Amino acid sequence: MALVVIGGVAAGLSAAARARRISPHLEIVVLEKGPVISLGACGLPYFVEGRVRQASDLIVYTPEYFRKQRNIDVRTGSRVVTVSHPRREVTLESGERVRYEHLVIATGARYDTCAIASLPEHVFTLHTLDDATRLRAFIRDKHPRHAAVIGAGYIGLEAADALRRNGLRVTVLERSQQLLLRDDAWWTGLVRHQLNQYGVELRCGVDVRATDFPADVVVFAAGFRPNVELAAEAGIEIGRTGAIRTDDHMETSLRGVYAAGDCAEVGHLVTGRPTWIPLGTTANKTGRVAGANATGGRERFPGIVGTSIVRVFDWAFATTGLTATEARAEGFSPAAVQIEAKSKPGYFGGSKTSVELVADRATRRLLGGSAVGEDGAAGRIDVIATALHSGMRIDQFEQLDLAYSPPYSTVWDPLLIAAQQLIKQL
Amino acid sequence: MALVVIGGVAAGLSAAARARRISPHLEIVVLEKGPVISLGACGLPYFVEGRVRQASDLIVYTPEYFRKQRNIDVRTGSRVVTVSHPRREVTLESGERVRYEHLVIATGARYDTCAIASLPEHVFTLHTLDDATRLRAFIRDKHPRHAAVIGAGYIGLEAADALRRNGLRVTVLERSQQLLLRDDAWWTGLVRHQLNQYGVELRCGVDVRATDFPADVVVFAAGFRPNVELAAEAGIEIGRTGAIRTDDHMETSLRGVYAAGDCAEVGHLVTGRPTWIPLGTTANKTGRVAGANATGGRERFPGIVGTSIVRVFDWAFATTGLTATEARAEGFSPAAVQIEAKSKPGYFGGSKTSVELVADRATRRLLGGSAVGEDGAAGRIDVIATALHSGMRIDQFEQLDLAYSPPYSTVWDPLLIAAQQLIKQL
Repeated sequence: MALVVIGGVAAGLSAAARARRISPHLEIVVLEKGPVISLGACGLPYFVEGRVRQASDLIVYTPEYFRKQRNIDVRTGSRVVTVSHPRREVTLESGERVRYEHLVIATGARYDTCAIASLPEHVFTLHTLDDATRLRAFIRDKHPRHAAVIGAGYIGLEAADALRRNGLRVTVLERSQQLLLRDDAWWTGLVRHQLNQYGVELRCGVDVRATDFPADVVVFAAGFRPNVELAAEAGIEIGRTGAIRTDDHMETSLRGVYAAGDCAEVGHLVTGRPTWIPLGTTANKTGRVAGANATGGRERFPGIVGTSIVRVFDWAFATTGLTATEARAEGFSPAAVQIEAKSKPGYFGGSKTSVELVADRATRRLLGGSAVGEDGAAGRIDVIATALHSGMRIDQFEQLDLAYSPPYSTVWDPLLIAAQQLIKQL
Repeated sequence: MALVVIGGVAAGLSAAARARRISPHLEIVVLEKGPVISLGACGLPYFVEGRVRQASDLIVYTPEYFRKQRNIDVRTGSRVVTVSHPRREVTLESGERVRYEHLVIATGARYDTCAIASLPEHVFTLHTLDDATRLRAFIRDKHPRHAAVIGAGYIGLEAADALRRNGLRVTVLERSQQLLLRDDAWWTGLVRHQLNQYGVELRCGVDVRATDFPADVVVFAAGFRPNVELAAEAGIEIGRTGAIRTDDHMETSLRGVYAAGDCAEVGHLVTGRPTWIPLGTTANKTGRVAGANATGGRERFPGIVGTSIVRVFDWAFATTGLTATEARAEGFSPAAVQIEAKSKPGYFGGSKTSVELVADRATRRLLGGSAVGEDGAAGRIDVIATALHSGMRIDQFEQLDLAYSPPYSTVWDPLLIAAQQLIKQL
């Protein structure tokens, strides 16, 4: 009786590898619908850009590696069409059935292109290696001059960046007013500034279909949602976020069936409630926990704080925890502050860095923050994230003993300046 | 009746500025022995290097600024020679007496050049603007070819770096086996590698006086110690570290007399005991607290975790908390792990980054860590420092939701890889 893992990217392979480490003799089967496994999907925009030279550079492991080195049976081109838990078996598109004792569902997420039956040749998503390879070839061979990107989320703006660097005129079309998943003025103002700086046209509140807009090439990056149909049809509970509901052992509502990665909910450590924030880091972590528990372990995934970072041209846009708007919706009484400061001294190329901090008036607890700028944003967002993990109050945060030396920061780090300002408001 | 502050650099001016903000009408006098105030002393090596063009770029504020904008009477060239607390007055070298109600002592620290009565023309310390200006002029005018740096602490290696970048042959002489204040093999191995890489000769276990060693120019950067004579003579208690003992309000053993900055002890949040780790960040923070309390406030300085970072050529050497050796000496039962990982993907210029984590076997609490490498070390050390502030256990640290995107890190951040390795040892 085997452990079967549905999905051979981050979460699925983390689960399989962890299970193998714990159970040297267990039969482990990974079923991947696509032609490749172990795709570093976050690198796809940089392949389109041309920075990553070969598509194969984004493949970390091959099925052969898993077969030979790990004794894990990884099958590509194996799309699971049904899960029958009463019979402990999954059925593949080919009709083949695979029995399991424990099951890990790592079916990921996708862009919602369902409105379009089949995409015209000049319309691309940016989710698989094949997508990126075809888009790259299209740019090289067809010399498109004007690109439309549908969706101003992470992948949308990464794609806009990659296309612009290839010399294309780029228009980003976003149905809502959200840029990089937020619609507050401070954040969207910084995003708009940056797009404008690099000559990317942005149109918000435009509800176009991928085929409507006149452009030589279209990247469709809107409506990202979890692949839960298989789980739902198997009777597995779907949470309010639309992703598979899990407990803190990554177990679903069916005993012995685990879910991990972009298809699954996880707990949010600031709100204490389930959330769906699909990211590679969480996929790897939840995969490990699911894999350990699917072989009899009892590991816990404590949850996330919602940390993300994305590069748009030369700026990092990094955020973690709750925005003031989100905090208010969660019943907190937030105070927020936004500051601008130098990332380090001018003689070390210090540049403008923007920091936002959000804290709860009632408890003075830090609820979230953001850092935007050319350098140091990654480290600063990680400091905020770490503080959120421990439920730190803003008063303690203000006193953090952060590293200082001119090549790296300023004696009053922008985070501490922001904390001082925020405390004045509480 | 005035607030008198002895010392016009980081701690002293922070104290004065904070006091002014709290008490708009209080008379505030700052007595600085040197010719300038508000020196960004951490920038001195970069002035010697030539990166900072003008000495004046390192002066943030002038006495005139404080006089006109803040109504603070800042007097340069005013060396205090005695403090008579019973009479609430200080006496200057000139014989002038200045009365106070509250006193903040921010006398800083110095290199121990007491073995040498007066330094020969080719021997320099690197502590004042005058030191750096004279050294820079010496390099420009005398074209020295071989430099000796005495002391392999932060300033010593920053000076070695600056001199090497000016084309000099550089020999660093260190009496002990400590490099950047540590003598464990992992850390010193990395420092040695880096010095070797850039052609700096290092000799440890050599007890030379500044005048003994044949070199065209000598930078003396050994034996940094707090300036406590004034305080000691006034009957103020000196702690076991050799610095002025303070409570968590930065008050000394004399009521109404505060100490801050490089002359003062502070609490260490990991050991719970007084420590002396003289750094600009702590000077600014303790100055603020001393200034607030010296005007009737009741602010608390919670303490430090001992975070520092220094650049030696293209690598950052960053450390926080306790090393395994220090942890053992403090009665902990430490486990430590050292790993090497990529800071980010190769296609984004990711380079080798070395991380050490130390945790207590008994409580699993994180005790310290280090990060060394070309990029990302500053952010990573700040994450460890933040975790230390909250007394985080390694199990929680392993699950930190850190930001990931290819331009900034790897999906498993080196910190998390190190945490996973360390957990296996516990």
